[in-house]
Amino acid sequence: MENKRYYGIDIGGTTVKIGLVENGAVLKKWSVPTDTSNGGKNILPDIIASLPGPAAGAALAVPGAVLPDDTVNKCVNLGWGVCRPTDDFTAATGIPCRVLNDANSAALAEQRLGGGKGFESILFVALGTGVGAGVVLDGAVRVGARGSAGEIGHLCIDPEDKDAACTCGHYGCVETYASATGITRLAALAGRPGLSCKQVVDAAAAGDETLLAVVDRACDVLGRGIAGACAIIDPEAVVLGGGVAQAGEFFRRKVQAAFDKYAFHACLGTEIRLATLGSDAGMLGAALYAEG
Amino acid sequence: MENKRYYGIDIGGTTVKIGLVENGAVLKKWSVPTDTSNGGKNILPDIIASLPGPAAGAALAVPGAVLPDDTVNKCVNLGWGVCRPTDDFTAATGIPCRVLNDANSAALAEQRLGGGKGFESILFVALGTGVGAGVVLDGAVRVGARGSAGEIGHLCIDPEDKDAACTCGHYGCVETYASATGITRLAALAGRPGLSCKQVVDAAAAGDETLLAVVDRACDVLGRGIAGACAIIDPEAVVLGGGVAQAGEFFRRKVQAAFDKYAFHACLGTEIRLATLGSDAGMLGAALYAEG
Repeated sequence: MENKRYYGIDIGGTTVKIGLVENGAVLKKWSVPTDTSNGGKNILPDIIASLPGPAAGAALAVPGAVLPDDTVNKCVNLGWGVCRPTDDFTAATGIPCRVLNDANSAALAEQRLGGGKGFESILFVALGTGVGAGVVLDGAVRVGARGSAGEIGHLCIDPEDKDAACTCGHYGCVETYASATGITRLAALAGRPGLSCKQVVDAAAAGDETLLAVVDRACDVLGRGIAGACAIIDPEAVVLGGGVAQAGEFFRRKVQAAFDKYAFHACLGTEIRLATLGSDAGMLGAALYAEG
Repeated sequence: MENKRYYGIDIGGTTVKIGLVENGAVLKKWSVPTDTSNGGKNILPDIIASLPGPAAGAALAVPGAVLPDDTVNKCVNLGWGVCRPTDDFTAATGIPCRVLNDANSAALAEQRLGGGKGFESILFVALGTGVGAGVVLDGAVRVGARGSAGEIGHLCIDPEDKDAACTCGHYGCVETYASATGITRLAALAGRPGLSCKQVVDAAAAGDETLLAVVDRACDVLGRGIAGACAIIDPEAVVLGGGVAQAGEFFRRKVQAAFDKYAFHACLGTEIRLATLGSDAGMLGAALYAEG
């Protein structure tokens, strides 16, 4: 039966999550540590050694940009430069292999099996340390000509806000306000340094007025960014995932309200939903991507 | 030979441009006046009466939103409300008919035959009285779930700029700076009222410092908007059309420079090109769309 089974392999900076998946159901899942020593050259061998047997295909979800021809354009967290891990994987295992960005992978899983189920076209936004994102159109992941489709985190909100330096080199990107890093930054600017993003959001939900203003600002920026993205791709729905979105309805409602405030009139009615697959999304999406 | 010939019908507010097209070549083209009296109910009969004979298909390009199911969601300039003109067209002629937004139609023509030739995925931006736009991905027009894909004119640049009221009801949209209307508005704000957009751009090109600053501002906003759109869809190239873009290289270079300033690093290298099909683009794109 291995001809319907696919490996989904989500390579994170500390752990690789691996699943053997058939028709969207996880038959088995496990993890191996990510060994980033020596330019990450042990990562693939460690993964391959853990595989229980043959499969119809595999895909790697990686924390970096992937070009349309399956070239990985650097994964700083893994120690990888420009490389083609799919070639090495297939040479060692005989299993056909694809590769995609981890946020794109999670987007595909959420569209097929999670918060976006029932929609063919979604924008997925992963709110973690940074803001990752993926676009699924007509059921297929959109990679983009240069591997950067869906980069809503780098939509410019206020280029004059010199407090908001982004990792990308610009100022005032969505990510500098609406990521976990951005929310703790805004809290520090409001006189409340040293808090984690979860502490900020929990205190805001409990009624702390200063921190409520911080969360409102983050959600206003995110809703505005999503409104901009929807004016361009006009998806059926938007799905919010990542650690920040675990704040749940309290957070989702604020983002929906900001979206409704900024959205182009034809886009009103676009639902903003919460992701449901948690940290399995990247692994599941990779298995679905392997299936083609 | 009519089984390879398609009617492209571009319905504007004053004139309908019609072409009989085979393999992207115009065999014959003509126009009829757009009779907007009586809710525009004579428009289709006037078009149909002008057709010289059968064809394999036809498409209507209309100045309004078109939903994915071919429903036109109002064309204020034609006097049309929500309607299905394709059904009426086919009932009267026996010719299969499709309908699309006129900017989407021009986008398709420019991608296949014009400034975007050689690329499979482009963002087309039509700078006229307003800012229209269309997205072509993998050679196909992207309509969007609510018919509003590519609406870069309504990407929000500065919601606090209360001088910049947009036709959509918001403030600070790209359209309020970078359309012909936006450029004349910025010129008036700079103390130079009563000029046409062409006069503003020509004087700027001739070295008028005040108006050069106006054009620079419009191009800065447009380049920033295009950078935002490219972060979301990551097309291979961007094509600028419409009357404002007839300012040519002087204008294109400024937009490219602003794009390069704001673009996400992975999107650098995206070429911004000028449209080449002029006012035939809508008609040609409709014929290509009819072909499917």
